[in-house]
Amino acid sequence: MKVRCSSGDKDIRAVWFEDGKVVMIEQRKLPGSLEFVSFDDYREVAEAIRNMTVRGAPSIGASAAYAMCLASLKGEDLSSAVKDIKSARPTANDLFYAVDYMYSALVGGSDPVEAAETYAQSMVDKCTAIGRFGEPLIRDGAKIMTHCNAGALATVDVGTALAPMRAARDAGKKFFVYVSETRPRLQGMQLTAWELVQEGIEHAIIPDGASAHYMSKGVDLIITGADRIAANGDFANKIGTLDKAIAAKHYDVPFYVAAPVSTFDFSTKTGKDIVIEERNEKEVTEIGGFRIAPEGSTALNPAFDVTTADLVSGFITEEGILRPDEIRKVLK
Amino acid sequence: MKVRCSSGDKDIRAVWFEDGKVVMIEQRKLPGSLEFVSFDDYREVAEAIRNMTVRGAPSIGASAAYAMCLASLKGEDLSSAVKDIKSARPTANDLFYAVDYMYSALVGGSDPVEAAETYAQSMVDKCTAIGRFGEPLIRDGAKIMTHCNAGALATVDVGTALAPMRAARDAGKKFFVYVSETRPRLQGMQLTAWELVQEGIEHAIIPDGASAHYMSKGVDLIITGADRIAANGDFANKIGTLDKAIAAKHYDVPFYVAAPVSTFDFSTKTGKDIVIEERNEKEVTEIGGFRIAPEGSTALNPAFDVTTADLVSGFITEEGILRPDEIRKVLK
Repeated sequence: MKVRCSSGDKDIRAVWFEDGKVVMIEQRKLPGSLEFVSFDDYREVAEAIRNMTVRGAPSIGASAAYAMCLASLKGEDLSSAVKDIKSARPTANDLFYAVDYMYSALVGGSDPVEAAETYAQSMVDKCTAIGRFGEPLIRDGAKIMTHCNAGALATVDVGTALAPMRAARDAGKKFFVYVSETRPRLQGMQLTAWELVQEGIEHAIIPDGASAHYMSKGVDLIITGADRIAANGDFANKIGTLDKAIAAKHYDVPFYVAAPVSTFDFSTKTGKDIVIEERNEKEVTEIGGFRIAPEGSTALNPAFDVTTADLVSGFITEEGILRPDEIRKVLK
Repeated sequence: MKVRCSSGDKDIRAVWFEDGKVVMIEQRKLPGSLEFVSFDDYREVAEAIRNMTVRGAPSIGASAAYAMCLASLKGEDLSSAVKDIKSARPTANDLFYAVDYMYSALVGGSDPVEAAETYAQSMVDKCTAIGRFGEPLIRDGAKIMTHCNAGALATVDVGTALAPMRAARDAGKKFFVYVSETRPRLQGMQLTAWELVQEGIEHAIIPDGASAHYMSKGVDLIITGADRIAANGDFANKIGTLDKAIAAKHYDVPFYVAAPVSTFDFSTKTGKDIVIEERNEKEVTEIGGFRIAPEGSTALNPAFDVTTADLVSGFITEEGILRPDEIRKVLK
């Protein structure tokens, strides 16, 4: 991804390996400042995953792969490393997958750096393919809407929902992006808008509640990411996605979901089987530790909602665009 | 409205006249603390309208009426008072109406206090009637959703959208209210939730983007206020209302709008003729003067959206509940 530094533009990733260290963007400092942190001990990387210095399942997975690489390079006990790194976050499937992948590779005698780089690169390759398949959906002059952050910060590089936009920009197309701020944690305002500033892509932040208003005025395309896609095409994504999908149907706006094939979970039959994480209400009722809600009020803070397959125009994957009734194709 | 004070519960209004002074709740201090301010000069009341110590069109109208009362009691030049008070806010129709009403009454020889009290009481009577007509819509055990603040703070007392809830509570019904926080200014979280705490009505604050999620789980009824209702039943209300109305249609949730007949504007044919106020983007990109958005990003901040009549189950007015195709009845 492109980032604008005082020393000029750079092309970097959310996390990478350099001179024996894992380097990553300190995402908690965004969008106020772009800072980097580096670690040569796998425990420090696990802590960075835990404290959300790095976030986004694929970026977490890559960080975990690099952490295993560090453990191997320093001759640490790999079984302990597996346990320590896996315990960093409770629900990120990519985290467990990456650690297991690396353990097998290392036990099988693979080069630690090469194995971790292969893991990270595979994610970037998938995102690049998603961008290639999604790019033709964006016409020159289009108005696009997105939600939360499904960008390069979350996926090592390129992004999922932002991949077709980066590809369309590279193809010379002009377009405008409505970025819904994504309360309560504001990943749309603070991460997606930041990525678009770096890339020089024209955009505006909107309150989540302004989504239908702008669709009523004319939006050509909505692209979001997905956290999990069930066998019937229902999918879970950041809270607020469902409101947009319903309004998109109402106004006949095409609604696309960009996600790698690994997001499909065929063991989950429908969206009803997806358990929604309820997060701490303080994310809603406090800002910077200061209470903004009345004393005596409580808040509900579901992390995700489930959008039903009938509202989805298509899933943009690294294997092509699939309608909800076509997703079983990826099983082959 | 009921308020909980250290000295016990009290029944007060948002603004009233007492011992020769206009007294009002300092709404800018809510929900952190309940404070009152009082004025014996009409210019101070005009300033309180300007700086949003008092907000909500009907409460502003009543404050303006009391300000005219002060001007008369102190023998001030009434024409100057009319001009000064009307200039306090640019777009509040109730403000202009109240000032003209009082000027006519005072020039006609009416008692200043009596005329202002009559004006304020008429608003409260309308809200009480809205509550009476709306109350039967709320079944015992209902789950209700509302947006922004259409409560007693905005309407001298009782409220519009909150009137049926107060009436249902008084009728002994139990119910639960989802209060969407209403970004960017958070009137749902900071004013509506505060009123419900005072009244002891069970509720939870939700991010605006969680509205469809909770409708998908089961909501019985949505009630919002309205800022202006066009001749065809389209209406303008706080941004985020349209998203809820569309989701309500999708999930077959009845969607009601509570508003006095004075909100109907038959000179406006459809919602397309309603001009939407665009407010300062800093309401979105800053919190407490601190920038939370990336440098280089802009934000869009429409104050209202327009919900089309086909999404409205009915308008709860002081003359009864009217379907969108019935609203011309109020012209008689």
